Amino acid sequence: MKDVQGQIDNRGIDIHNVGVKDFHLPLLIQTREGGFQPVMANVSLSVSLPMHFKGTHMSRFVEALLPWSSKPISNTELKSLLIDTCERLEADSAEVTMAFKYFIEKTAPVSLKASFMDYDCIFKARREKERHSFILGVEVPVTSCCPCSKEISDYGAHNQRTLIKVKVRFHGGFLWIEDLVDRIEKQGSCQLYPLLKREDEKFVTERAYENPKFVEDILRDTVIALRKEPLISWFDIECESIESIHNHSAFARHTETKEQMTY
Amino acid sequence: MKDVQGQIDNRGIDIHNVGVKDFHLPLLIQTREGGFQPVMANVSLSVSLPMHFKGTHMSRFVEALLPWSSKPISNTELKSLLIDTCERLEADSAEVTMAFKYFIEKTAPVSLKASFMDYDCIFKARREKERHSFILGVEVPVTSCCPCSKEISDYGAHNQRTLIKVKVRFHGGFLWIEDLVDRIEKQGSCQLYPLLKREDEKFVTERAYENPKFVEDILRDTVIALRKEPLISWFDIECESIESIHNHSAFARHTETKEQMTY
Amino acid sequence: MKDVQGQIDNRGIDIHNVGVKDFHLPLLIQTREGGFQPVMANVSLSVSLPMHFKGTHMSRFVEALLPWSSKPISNTELKSLLIDTCERLEADSAEVTMAFKYFIEKTAPVSLKASFMDYDCIFKARREKERHSFILGVEVPVTSCCPCSKEISDYGAHNQRTLIKVKVRFHGGFLWIEDLVDRIEKQGSCQLYPLLKREDEKFVTERAYENPKFVEDILRDTVIALRKEPLISWFDIECESIESIHNHSAFARHTETKEQMTY
Amino acid sequence: MKDVQGQIDNRGIDIHNVGVKDFHLPLLIQTREGGFQPVMANVSLSVSLPMHFKGTHMSRFVEALLPWSSKPISNTELKSLLIDTCERLEADSAEVTMAFKYFIEKTAPVSLKASFMDYDCIFKARREKERHSFILGVEVPVTSCCPCSKEISDYGAHNQRTLIKVKVRFHGGFLWIEDLVDRIEKQGSCQLYPLLKREDEKFVTERAYENPKFVEDILRDTVIALRKEPLISWFDIECESIESIHNHSAFARHTETKEQMTY
Repeated sequence: MKDVQGQIDNRGIDIHNVGVKDFHLPLLIQTREGGFQPVMANVSLSVSLPMHFKGTHMSRFVEALLPWSSKPISNTELKSLLIDTCERLEADSAEVTMAFKYFIEKTAPVSLKASFMDYDCIFKARREKERHSFILGVEVPVTSCCPCSKEISDYGAHNQRTLIKVKVRFHGGFLWIEDLVDRIEKQGSCQLYPLLKREDEKFVTERAYENPKFVEDILRDTVIALRKEPLISWFDIECESIESIHNHSAFARHTETKEQMTY
Repeated sequence: MKDVQGQIDNRGIDIHNVGVKDFHLPLLIQTREGGFQPVMANVSLSVSLPMHFKGTHMSRFVEALLPWSSKPISNTELKSLLIDTCERLEADSAEVTMAFKYFIEKTAPVSLKASFMDYDCIFKARREKERHSFILGVEVPVTSCCPCSKEISDYGAHNQRTLIKVKVRFHGGFLWIEDLVDRIEKQGSCQLYPLLKREDEKFVTERAYENPKFVEDILRDTVIALRKEPLISWFDIECESIESIHNHSAFARHTETKEQMTY
Repeated sequence: MKDVQGQIDNRGIDIHNVGVKDFHLPLLIQTREGGFQPVMANVSLSVSLPMHFKGTHMSRFVEALLPWSSKPISNTELKSLLIDTCERLEADSAEVTMAFKYFIEKTAPVSLKASFMDYDCIFKARREKERHSFILGVEVPVTSCCPCSKEISDYGAHNQRTLIKVKVRFHGGFLWIEDLVDRIEKQGSCQLYPLLKREDEKFVTERAYENPKFVEDILRDTVIALRKEPLISWFDIECESIESIHNHSAFARHTETKEQMTY
Repeated sequence: MKDVQGQIDNRGIDIHNVGVKDFHLPLLIQTREGGFQPVMANVSLSVSLPMHFKGTHMSRFVEALLPWSSKPISNTELKSLLIDTCERLEADSAEVTMAFKYFIEKTAPVSLKASFMDYDCIFKARREKERHSFILGVEVPVTSCCPCSKEISDYGAHNQRTLIKVKVRFHGGFLWIEDLVDRIEKQGSCQLYPLLKREDEKFVTERAYENPKFVEDILRDTVIALRKEPLISWFDIECESIESIHNHSAFARHTETKEQMTY
């Protein structure tokens, strides 16, 4: 049968990304403890397409992805996936994004009851002419208690769920999801827990009230925490508070490239 | 050209609903004050299809809807739309759902500054063999402050945005969106406002703390408010609290058909 | 500490459902082949609340759910979960909904290449005064090719992805997800496959063109397929075509309770 | 009352963006014909925050936005909004994003019947130390018919809805939404229409079959169309095909900064 995709194209346009997206796949994510966690991932995988090809071969992206549903994945394995994809598609560069919910055990602060909390995570890796880059994204929900509301009110203070959305690029190593979440989770007025007994609820209520923070405070404290990590060379942070006194959100955002090229 | 849809079908199956959905249209919603508000609606319109027809004529639904983008709509006009749709499609019954954001002016409690707040609303109307029914749905966000958290903590109390999602069926009349929102909005620990100056923020913080309510309390108080409305013959209420101390929601739901058939 | 939830309530309102929702949990779903598949579920779990209690104890829902992240689940296990939930909460009735993506192996029609396809599934179970009911929901995407477009055009025919959304209630047994998907998947103009090589693409293109179906045809053929299953006592079907020639969908919907109370 | 936000902050971190998001507001968008169209917008508005301020004053963003619900908006008016926002917040830079559905009249190709089609649009404007930039984003749905499927099959060809998502930055002027949509809409295998009678359906079916295009072809033809517009200095295009033979999408993406600084 005719290879329509392989025909010559005369428009003279190299395309940055061609591939599949919104492709769902079960994956095994390597854990900090040395095992792996089964996740349900929404994946996009693409390559660059030189100007002389009319089209890419979409089925090959699926063939490149399928084997990874049974092999634990981390930063290193994504490099293999991208090298394999470049070979299958005869491409110079390739890019993959995997979005999934990841569960981490949480222990309630007083009762010490264990439960699992879900975090939205992203792995984004790119191979560009033999150079590899990797971005880890995590979304960490916390409680924020408003300092202004506490200060001006005779009692109480409005508080709400705040999402700390962080993306980091590494340099000479990487952090586990568990480690990155751990750095970020401390920056709210208080952490969230799936399971809280009454003594825990007293603790988190008082903790948040004692530790009021604007969305700007949470952002700045997260900036400070990420600046301290030598393995992180770039980060992007957005804090969004689902305001309990409004029908809209308050947010703060910050991006930074660290001057650590001397490492 | 051949009318494939009009061909005879032998499977002997009447279909309850056939039509279009996820159809977007600008509409004009009649306001309580006598004017109208332009909204952007997501519409579904369908008819029943007798067993002898192979298919319906999808373009006629669009033709039935288009004129309503320039004529103010309320309960009464939906009847005309459904009668017209039944005629165009030679059908016994028809059903329409219109989902849209509707804005209502809110005045801040102390500064008295005015702003507009958005409410997700639904109009759902049905014509069944010449009988008409109408359901109005509104989603009213409020603040909820937790009574348990307040009681057991030395200071503070967790609070969050809670959505009160109400659907009501009328009987012998109807309530304006503004009226229904007004009945519901009072049932939280405090109302939300798009615009709050510092003196207002003090007010809403203290108000919520003085008036703590579980999601069950908000539900029950809304039930009581709706039972009092003689024009309402059926209602369905779901209250969902976007918990500020968890990464999940707490909810309560209740449906009731009133025994007021004697009205 | 004071049990605020356990206090007496004087409003005289029994609440139908009180519980948690949008709670994420890794689960193990039993497969037809006798094993289990790890999934990521969005769960809601609730009980009825008698009028004399002010509130429920939300942490107990989480405690009831947690053990199930490591025990394979099917219809039978959901009964245990609901009995346990009723006991923990001292309630008469309980209800659980679990929504998750489930993967089934698909073999390409000509090349016979294997891959996994994802289906959105729902388990919904209810215990009401010792009686149990169970609903299985699956969403099966297929290709639909328009009979009218084929008939009136000199060549070609518009086609698109169509979602067949089915919910079934069982009676005296149950079907595996794999079995239900299998019954439904045959009702489109052609099945979908994650991986298709060129010879497969020729097959599915020609197959859909030879087998044109309106959204009404797909609905009726699915009705016939489900009527034939003696274990199904009730079903609800919605077919939605993401039209390739419009920016909206065409849809058809049908619900049926079977007269098989004599079984 | 104490101005907590105005307090001195010692962390030494300038924040790039602080403000409100997911704020809904009715707006009036200027049309090419000289009038305006009421839309429902989801808005985010933010400013940069110098390191010495602890927090911003969130209510001022709402005060800056409210007047614009009754004044027609285009590129020029967004400059006024940003200047006003910088003044109210004593900030150097400000940024606004407005996302809304916009309707454009479409005439069916043969019957010439008129209807309105909805397009997801974005206005994104930024003021940075007195310099202004403006990005217009539109999402144009079209039909794509697969050239490979047509070539290898004896009859038929799979086709589907494809979204052409374009963002453009201007330089020395701007294009109306209507003009940009017009340039893009021609690049699919065929345009979409809300209302098509039988003779129109024959036309669009045959037109798409005669004009098969890969997602890569649609991308490249859109690149060529945008390169020709002298007022556009930068663009980003993503074409996503909601494949009718798969349960995932195929996509292509391309970004280009034009060397036209000499204009």
